[in-house]
Amino acid sequence: MWEFKTPGIPDELFERTEKVPITKEEVRTIQISKARLLPGQVVYDIGCGSGSITVEAAIQIEQTGKVIGIDFDENAIELTKKNVEKFNLSNVSLVFGNAKEKIKDLEQADVIFVGGTGGDTADIVQLCKEKLKTGGRIVIGIILIETLYSVLKVLEKIEFTSVDITQVTISKSRKTSTGTMMLARNPVTIISAAKN
Amino acid sequence: MWEFKTPGIPDELFERTEKVPITKEEVRTIQISKARLLPGQVVYDIGCGSGSITVEAAIQIEQTGKVIGIDFDENAIELTKKNVEKFNLSNVSLVFGNAKEKIKDLEQADVIFVGGTGGDTADIVQLCKEKLKTGGRIVIGIILIETLYSVLKVLEKIEFTSVDITQVTISKSRKTSTGTMMLARNPVTIISAAKN
Repeated sequence: MWEFKTPGIPDELFERTEKVPITKEEVRTIQISKARLLPGQVVYDIGCGSGSITVEAAIQIEQTGKVIGIDFDENAIELTKKNVEKFNLSNVSLVFGNAKEKIKDLEQADVIFVGGTGGDTADIVQLCKEKLKTGGRIVIGIILIETLYSVLKVLEKIEFTSVDITQVTISKSRKTSTGTMMLARNPVTIISAAKN
Repeated sequence: MWEFKTPGIPDELFERTEKVPITKEEVRTIQISKARLLPGQVVYDIGCGSGSITVEAAIQIEQTGKVIGIDFDENAIELTKKNVEKFNLSNVSLVFGNAKEKIKDLEQADVIFVGGTGGDTADIVQLCKEKLKTGGRIVIGIILIETLYSVLKVLEKIEFTSVDITQVTISKSRKTSTGTMMLARNPVTIISAAKN
């Protein structure tokens, strides 16, 4: 389904529904790069939404790895399942429920992606630190100002290393009757860090 | 040197000099993703500068592939050579000179990256179409408004398919004495397209 080695699957190749958000191609590509993936890794995708990060990560970590997608929206789990099937992936398992409760029972992770988490992002980041292996990486995609503030506060308290804060603003072209204009998308802040 | 599977090598891992530009991590990651690389491919990196795209592409296309880096600045060729050595790559060859003359003699390419080309970008894009294999992809990184305009004009004339125009604006955090601010970098426009 995705024959290339590099990440960056076009958005239109994913199944979509109106109610479930997707991490769009370019932002997703940067998030995947900040994770620094390797075959065989165990990866959580917390707030997997449409499953676009789950799918890209599952391809990169290959058959020997494992992605665990988690979402508290049943529609998201269903949609992620569809996309996992569409891309013929057999190294993904999906967990429906609140990540704060669900990740306690999971095996330790090499990489944790944190996406839309309904206001709980800071709490979840704290929990993630316990679930990460030494040297493991966390990559957090943030849209809300309140989430950005609370995650910064948490990162001051719990010691991560190599903290990187990158804001990404993407514009895409649109043809008008007289030329080419650029249409801006909302900025996304990507925070990545490693556990010592 | 880069043990991970995913692209996105931090800028500080590359040798740098003041006079030679580098395509920075996040923009480079998106450019690599738009190229859709595969092992075994032949890739040109026109205007290779510091060689950061040459290095990332060479890793992705593996030993069976080949990257040809081209630059008309001898300092750039020297610096790219240093970085190719630093990352232990043996699938890169470097060409010093004007791309408009030099690419004529090269074997056909699967992917062509076009970077800083001293005002000749539109002409080079036209030449690149001849050098691309059917199904091959071109990825152009553009900073100057004049270059963007001239490349758009060229793309209207010569028929590429799947043209994607993406403007990327990256901000990075900086700690001040009282908090965390975001520092903006200049926007880069990435045009990618395929040859039918």
